[in-house]
This record gives sequence, C-alpha cells and structure tokens, in this order.
Amino acid sequence: MTSLPMLLTDAVADVGAEIDRRFDTLLAVPDDPRAGLYQAMRHAAIGGGKRLRPLLVMATADLFAVDRNCAALVGTAIEAIHVYSLIHDDLPAMDDDAMRRGKPTVHKAFDEATAILAGDCLHALAFEVLADPRTHADPFVRSELVLDLARAAGPSGMAGGQMMDLEAERARFDLPTVTRLQQMKTGALICAAVEAGAILGRVPPEGRTHLRGYAHDLGLAFQIADDLLDVEGDEALVGKTLRKDGEAGKETFLSLLGVDRAREQCRMLVEQAVGHLRSYGPEADLLRAIARYVVERDR
Amino acid sequence: MTSLPMLLTDAVADVGAEIDRRFDTLLAVPDDPRAGLYQAMRHAAIGGGKRLRPLLVMATADLFAVDRNCAALVGTAIEAIHVYSLIHDDLPAMDDDAMRRGKPTVHKAFDEATAILAGDCLHALAFEVLADPRTHADPFVRSELVLDLARAAGPSGMAGGQMMDLEAERARFDLPTVTRLQQMKTGALICAAVEAGAILGRVPPEGRTHLRGYAHDLGLAFQIADDLLDVEGDEALVGKTLRKDGEAGKETFLSLLGVDRAREQCRMLVEQAVGHLRSYGPEADLLRAIARYVVERDR
Repeated sequence: MTSLPMLLTDAVADVGAEIDRRFDTLLAVPDDPRAGLYQAMRHAAIGGGKRLRPLLVMATADLFAVDRNCAALVGTAIEAIHVYSLIHDDLPAMDDDAMRRGKPTVHKAFDEATAILAGDCLHALAFEVLADPRTHADPFVRSELVLDLARAAGPSGMAGGQMMDLEAERARFDLPTVTRLQQMKTGALICAAVEAGAILGRVPPEGRTHLRGYAHDLGLAFQIADDLLDVEGDEALVGKTLRKDGEAGKETFLSLLGVDRAREQCRMLVEQAVGHLRSYGPEADLLRAIARYVVERDR
Repeated sequence: MTSLPMLLTDAVADVGAEIDRRFDTLLAVPDDPRAGLYQAMRHAAIGGGKRLRPLLVMATADLFAVDRNCAALVGTAIEAIHVYSLIHDDLPAMDDDAMRRGKPTVHKAFDEATAILAGDCLHALAFEVLADPRTHADPFVRSELVLDLARAAGPSGMAGGQMMDLEAERARFDLPTVTRLQQMKTGALICAAVEAGAILGRVPPEGRTHLRGYAHDLGLAFQIADDLLDVEGDEALVGKTLRKDGEAGKETFLSLLGVDRAREQCRMLVEQAVGHLRSYGPEADLLRAIARYVVERDR
C-alpha cells in the first residue's frame, strides 16, 4: 500500500469510516421479529469492502464543493445497492459463494431466505435515502439521483449484466460481448456513482461528458484488474474464493486477451480515464489517484 | 361475480388490460443474452392477478381528476413491486410455491437464478418509472412517489413483513403481532397505492387522513379475506396452492379468531373503510366498490 499517495489512503480510510457510521444508523436493529433481517444487512454492509462507489460519489462531489453530509448519504445509498447485489450474487442459485470480504456470505452466516430479504431491503432502502428530503432539499436533484441509480441497477445495468454473466457459462462470448457484459455488471454502478456526484454538483448533462468518459474507462479498467486478481490474487487478501471463472469455463477479459495484453489494456484505460480529467486542476487529484489505484491494488 | 357492481367489473377489466399493455411496452424482450430475464419478468407481470394496487392508484387519482396516463404508469410501478415480491416469496428458500396466478412460478418455468434477477429487475424498474420525467413533469411529485413506494417496500413495510412471516413459523405470534405483520406485509403496499393517488392529486399530507384510514382498513380486510380463501377457497380459482399456513403451524387471523369472528372482523373493517370516504360523493363509488369486493371475492 506504500505506493499509493497519502491523499488516497486518507480518503479511503475516511470514507470507509463514514459509510460504516451511516449504515450503523440506517440499520439500527429493532427489538422485534425483524432483528435477524437487520443483523444480516449489517453483516453485509458494515466493516468491509473498498467503498469505491461512495469514494467516487464524494470525490466527484468535492469538485463542486457539495455539502459532505449530502454526498455521504448518496454514497451510502449507492453502496447499499452494491451490497444488495453482492448478497444476491453469492446465493447458492447464483454464484454459490461461501466467503465475501473475508467473512461468511449472508446465506451462510444466516440463511437463504434472510439473505434474499436482506438484499431486497437494502435495495429499497437505497431509494428511500435518495428520495428523502433530509438527503437533499431540492426534489429535482432527488429525482435525478433516483433515476440515475435505478437505471444503473436494473435490467439495462447491473442486474442485466449479472444475467449475461450467468449466460456466459453456457455461451461463448466474444470480446465486444464480454465488454458489454462488464460495462453493465460493474461499470454501470461505477458510472452512476460519478454521475451522482455531478448531479449533486448541479452540472448539467451536457457538462458531464468528461466525467462520464472517466467513469466509463475506470469501470472497465476496474473489471480487468478484478479478472487479473482472480487469477493472480491472494485469497486471504481479496477475501473471497478466487479462480472460479476459469473453472466455470467463462470467457473473461483474461481468457480472451491473455494476462499480458489484459494488464496492458487495464493500464491504457486508466491513463485514458485520467486524460478525461485534463480540464480539472488539483481538485481532481483524488479521482486521478483512485484510477491509478485500480491497476495497483491487491484486493 | 354477478354480485359486483358493473362499475367495478368494468374498472377491473380496463385496469387489467391497461397494466398488461404497460408491462408489454416496459418489458420488450431484447435480442441479446438477457432475453430469458425479460421473458421471466413478462411471465410474472403480464396476464394475471387482480391488479388491486393499480386499481387503487387509479381510483384514488380519479377523485382528483389526475391525468390517466400518469396514474397508469404509477400503478404499473407499484404493481412491479408487488410482482417482484411474489417472485421472491415463491422461491424454494422462501414459501417454495410451484403455482401462482394459475401458472408455474418463475423459478419453475425458468430457474432460480433467473427468478432472483427478474425480481431484482422489476424492483429497480419500479423506481425508474416513478423517477422518469415522462411519468410526471413535477420532480417534487416524482420524488414523493419514490419515497412513498420505497418506504412501503423496504424493511419497515412489505419486505419487513415477509421477514416476520418467516419468523411466524418458528414463534407463536399473538393477535397484535399478526396484525402488525399483515399491516406491513400486505397493508403497506395497499396504503402506498392509495397514497400515490393522493400524491398525484396534490393532496397535502394533512388532507390525506381519510384516504389513509380507508387504505389501512382495506389492507387488513384484504388480508383476512385472503386467510379465509386460504382455508375455504378453490385452488383452481385462486390459482395457487392453498392451506399451507395451517400446515406450517403459522398463526393467522383465522387461527387466532376462528372462521366466524374473522369473517365478522373482515366485514366490519370494510364498513369502516367505506366510512372513511363519507366526505366524498359519487366520485368515490369505485373505492367503495373495491372495498366491498374484498369480502365477496372468490380468488
């Protein structure tokens, strides 16, 4: 971790603690038969993960001097969607994973029914937070945030990408199809996080082109780095079972490009992502550091 | 069905056809690996159900001369949440049901992974529709609708009630707890439908008291009628496997009150629901007819 600029390590620690605090408040365990449901949500949501998506919301919002409380709430909502998707993806009928973020997955620590419902609840809570006047006073901003996130989460985004990923075990996808799959499965929510920062900053859609370019390239680089970690990573550091894609016979960036070209492609995408930020000054250094971290990370 | 006023039968047929049309447009099958996902959503969403929630949105919106296109879109969004919850509730890890609305459940007709994702997609699509400026031009109305539905769907509403329902197999709930469970599991979304009609009608919160009272009593009456159908109903008409609650040893309104008192309670709640509409004239006749239908229905 010493190769990362201090700016990034500080921001990662700050945002991690901030998001944990928000989830702790949002998911206070009630004294009734739903206690297990809330414990399951807390198990999945608190104390783990890189918090990349909230970090992107907050780093983008910082470009436009957005209120930090507001950006943290929006980051929490997007992370809630990410966490719900991990809970559901780990289910036996889906990827059937036993470990996530170094802990047992929710259906292992609790049971399958609780895992399904915990995911569904985090999904609804994300939109409840975004539509709450206490998150942002302007209803136009609130409804833009909801639209941004709902599109990214649904069948044209994350959940659609997950469906394509399931089909990838049965079909042989080519590079454009794998790229589209990953752009939906991982990229859409990463783009939604940057877009949310721009919405909070009241940047009109036509002023978001560079930020969108940054997020698009970052999302793909992130997924290639994830594929590389899946092959070369240390399970103890990454916190989940690795090398499952190869066993399942799925085409990935790695199987299609080979390790060397995939690594090269990842580096190129990161430089391209950073290039999109050229109109910004030092205020975008954190976004630049996040992009560079993507190629260097070991978890 | 001859005992129902024409007003209601016409409205049910109209709204049913309308919601089918909206889902047909919303869920157009793409020519890519997500085709199965969309077919699964269509299987669950099109051509079935009483469409009680969209009917309530539209009947309430009609009190305030709301644009019918707008009310139909909001009704579709709420029905999408209802359908997603049915798909997930039917999963093997949850209620493990093979039939729904007279057809195989989604995980039977497709597979479990597709069923989980089809539910997740309908969940996200509901909020996408509500936050879309084409649904309503006023962002304040859009964000109120999202907040209304997200609260009703999440851990303090439908999904929380479903969790309590799972616990009901392990614990022995008393009447107040069963009432709260049902108010969350079924009642919250019924209340959200009426509330959405009032939001569209720009009724301020303090003017919604009577409509909320109506929805609250209707929701409980509906659930008691459902419990009665579960014991006395015809599986072919109801379209799903009945008499499962008794076998699971779950406390319900019926097990706690007995058939006669439950039926009496249901009738009383319906009269109480109708009583809340006394300040409205004939424009609320459809809402009155919906309430009376609840005690008479056979499916």
